[in-house]
Amino acid sequence: MRALGKRCWAIPEGYIPPASTGTSRQMTSHEAVCMLNTGEREAHVTITIFFSDREPAGPYRMTVPARRTLHQRFNDLTDPEPIPADKDYASVIESDEPIVVQHTRLDSRQAELALLSTIAFSCD
Amino acid sequence: MRALGKRCWAIPEGYIPPASTGTSRQMTSHEAVCMLNTGEREAHVTITIFFSDREPAGPYRMTVPARRTLHQRFNDLTDPEPIPADKDYASVIESDEPIVVQHTRLDSRQAELALLSTIAFSCD
Amino acid sequence: MRALGKRCWAIPEGYIPPASTGTSRQMTSHEAVCMLNTGEREAHVTITIFFSDREPAGPYRMTVPARRTLHQRFNDLTDPEPIPADKDYASVIESDEPIVVQHTRLDSRQAELALLSTIAFSCD
Amino acid sequence: MRALGKRCWAIPEGYIPPASTGTSRQMTSHEAVCMLNTGEREAHVTITIFFSDREPAGPYRMTVPARRTLHQRFNDLTDPEPIPADKDYASVIESDEPIVVQHTRLDSRQAELALLSTIAFSCD
Repeated sequence: MRALGKRCWAIPEGYIPPASTGTSRQMTSHEAVCMLNTGEREAHVTITIFFSDREPAGPYRMTVPARRTLHQRFNDLTDPEPIPADKDYASVIESDEPIVVQHTRLDSRQAELALLSTIAFSCD
Repeated sequence: MRALGKRCWAIPEGYIPPASTGTSRQMTSHEAVCMLNTGEREAHVTITIFFSDREPAGPYRMTVPARRTLHQRFNDLTDPEPIPADKDYASVIESDEPIVVQHTRLDSRQAELALLSTIAFSCD
Repeated sequence: MRALGKRCWAIPEGYIPPASTGTSRQMTSHEAVCMLNTGEREAHVTITIFFSDREPAGPYRMTVPARRTLHQRFNDLTDPEPIPADKDYASVIESDEPIVVQHTRLDSRQAELALLSTIAFSCD
Repeated sequence: MRALGKRCWAIPEGYIPPASTGTSRQMTSHEAVCMLNTGEREAHVTITIFFSDREPAGPYRMTVPARRTLHQRFNDLTDPEPIPADKDYASVIESDEPIVVQHTRLDSRQAELALLSTIAFSCD
């Protein structure tokens, strides 16, 4: 299949709850950026995180192999730094190959139950 | 009415919970791809499923008749193979006629209660 | 303000639960099409409803005044016929003036609590 | 990073529950407009609120600094007037610099649990 999508995407919404908030672990939510690479070349992806009160964090680097999808949880990003909890953030996803990007928030009360989702904004 | 929409759509998010996860059947969720064919000719649709760790599955073939909508649950796809549970997936929907595609996750605790939805990304 | 938006929109997803399903009235959900007319002329809107197993219903006619929004519940449409419950449907919204259209499902357990939402697909 | 996005966005859906509705404060929901300014110049944003039965309110003015995101709750807008509760509304977001806009509804039962989200409609 040809490589579908765009090389630049933005997601203005993002929030990781403070660890102390969850009275039970069941209520923890996770935000994920779902990326699809339909093409024949691996896509090298860079994510930049924007905040309301400090300079951006990143770049966070990852690879989406050819003909594969990668559902990356923001909570799992650690290099160059974890995304701080209890702070509003936004993200920009850049790729050297076309990809398609969807933003999803999961509620782990039930395994992988999704609470919201939207196709990201393509900036190309 | 003229045939509205596009011939290629992508949905990066997808997940079918493992059967063993649901402590009660009520918590099972279903993902659906809602397709609308407003035109006067039937649309022959092909769905390809992408994964994070294996080659794509499909093609899954179906028809959306003229002036009809088809709300296809991913869980109901069986030919050429069921979509494996407990694995992240993504989908590409291709049609020989223009259609409009929306991604919806349903929560069967309440009949057809929807939990998330987004218009898919049009790749044309 | 100038008239923002498009004259044709599509929403592939739609479902009204059967009356008998709701064990309690609190779980009833309502689907709405939210229309915004930012312009200086009233918009005359026509909605056509598509099904999986019968010919389309409609046209349903309504007016969105200049500089106004109209949040129309599908459940409240009665002329030329109510939308049948327990059937998948889809909708096309056409207007003689540009409008912006968003699809929202409400959960009446809590007043107007929204469960899902997406900007509709613009067909222009 | 270059300034991503558009200068005009629309969100047809909006609703603030009446204060008396919430039997418990836990069920209060909040709607937010999440704005991302990836560029090097601050963005001066104007929000106009449209209703079903009265003239629009606003302009509400705010600034999104360079390389920052602002998650603005509609409930917190007070100048020139609070947004009335228990009324359907819609919003148009205009900026002198490109921004990306996402609409999110939060459920404060759990800190910042999101219930719905969609990228706004870009009007440029």
